[in-house]
Amino acid sequence: MANIQQITLYTAKICPYAHRVEIALNEAKASFKSFQIDLQNKPEWYAPKVNPASKVPAIAYGGPDVPPETPSPDSTKLAESLPSPDSTKLAESLVLVEFVADLFPQSSILPTDPVLRAQARFFIEAISTKFTPSYGGFVLRGDSYENVLQGIDAIQPLLPEPGKFAVGDQFSVADIAIAPFIARLFLAAQHDIGKYEAGDGHKLLSALAAPKFAKFNAYKTLVLERPSVIATFDNVGFKLFVPI
Amino acid sequence: MANIQQITLYTAKICPYAHRVEIALNEAKASFKSFQIDLQNKPEWYAPKVNPASKVPAIAYGGPDVPPETPSPDSTKLAESLPSPDSTKLAESLVLVEFVADLFPQSSILPTDPVLRAQARFFIEAISTKFTPSYGGFVLRGDSYENVLQGIDAIQPLLPEPGKFAVGDQFSVADIAIAPFIARLFLAAQHDIGKYEAGDGHKLLSALAAPKFAKFNAYKTLVLERPSVIATFDNVGFKLFVPI
Repeated sequence: MANIQQITLYTAKICPYAHRVEIALNEAKASFKSFQIDLQNKPEWYAPKVNPASKVPAIAYGGPDVPPETPSPDSTKLAESLPSPDSTKLAESLVLVEFVADLFPQSSILPTDPVLRAQARFFIEAISTKFTPSYGGFVLRGDSYENVLQGIDAIQPLLPEPGKFAVGDQFSVADIAIAPFIARLFLAAQHDIGKYEAGDGHKLLSALAAPKFAKFNAYKTLVLERPSVIATFDNVGFKLFVPI
Repeated sequence: MANIQQITLYTAKICPYAHRVEIALNEAKASFKSFQIDLQNKPEWYAPKVNPASKVPAIAYGGPDVPPETPSPDSTKLAESLPSPDSTKLAESLVLVEFVADLFPQSSILPTDPVLRAQARFFIEAISTKFTPSYGGFVLRGDSYENVLQGIDAIQPLLPEPGKFAVGDQFSVADIAIAPFIARLFLAAQHDIGKYEAGDGHKLLSALAAPKFAKFNAYKTLVLERPSVIATFDNVGFKLFVPI
């Protein structure tokens, strides 16, 4: 059992990548501090002190247990801003999800069987190339909803039988990787919000009701009912989760 | 200690991605069978029986210990070709490197410290976006050698102090991920072979001799001297490793 040090998560509700880490931490029942980064107006200390790529999610791990950020009396003195320089800064959502799995093996989000682990990681690789880009394409850049349908069609052979998670009975890193994209995609489509043509959100939902997507729909329902997904997402306060 | 089952690796010497898995298996001192796939002329059973994406590397794991491929008396009967349907087929180089690390924890190619693991995986993510694409761009598609220099420049801040591996004293999955690309890049440049303009291989090497690339050069030397890298690569029989 690892001796867990302090964890500070830098996140943003709108970001599906950051959401992955929130789900993992929830599954792990981890104690952690969370700091919301406004992606439209990032604090000036964020890139130099936390993540040079200036993206969320990021984790500051270890070091003294300090607030995620404290206003410096002189804002030019970045060195006086927190997080502590003694913490290790880590980034990239999939790296962080595996980090949480490594810190909290009792969370069981990473299967112990090497074959199941490989299958989970393969699932993540496949959805990352075939499906998740279509969310951003549709909602953020206004691509056709048919790209989303194609992406879902492409990953259906990888999806489990109804009632199962991506690699079996156990909710894993594979499900964590896809859940935020499914959640945001449906939320955006239900409210018909996004950069796409008005009405295309509802067209997407109609098309997805076809029997050929039954496997995806069963999987989607199971994943969105997962308590860790519900606890880290908010269908009512949806303006925080999808771009208007 | 896992009970290791039979491992059959489908690989191709020319492929840097497949080379990653060969290095990992060598580090693990694993017993495995290896089957060379001619990427220009793939066996007809390869996609349907091993990897639907029709790429190397792939591993058939478990099932009976059979030859990697046995000619069927009737070549239309794919069902009679091997590998055994009882084996699990796994693919994607980074997935397979982690799979080998999971099967053979005594190989120490995956650090035990979660922070070092995360740093190794972050290194892999960074080189995969910033550096490794420039190898294929230069050698396989004839892009300018300056793209390679830019890629190396971009990853230099992540490289360790001279004498160290990517995440410390221990040769790890991070070094395994980059080594095949460094090896092929230098081999191609030394022989000035690739789709680029004649002479650009030598221009690349001259440019890399500059003091600003000292950190990269020290790291490159260390990685290319690793016994597992030497054992899985052949500077003399180079025609097998780079496209002519």
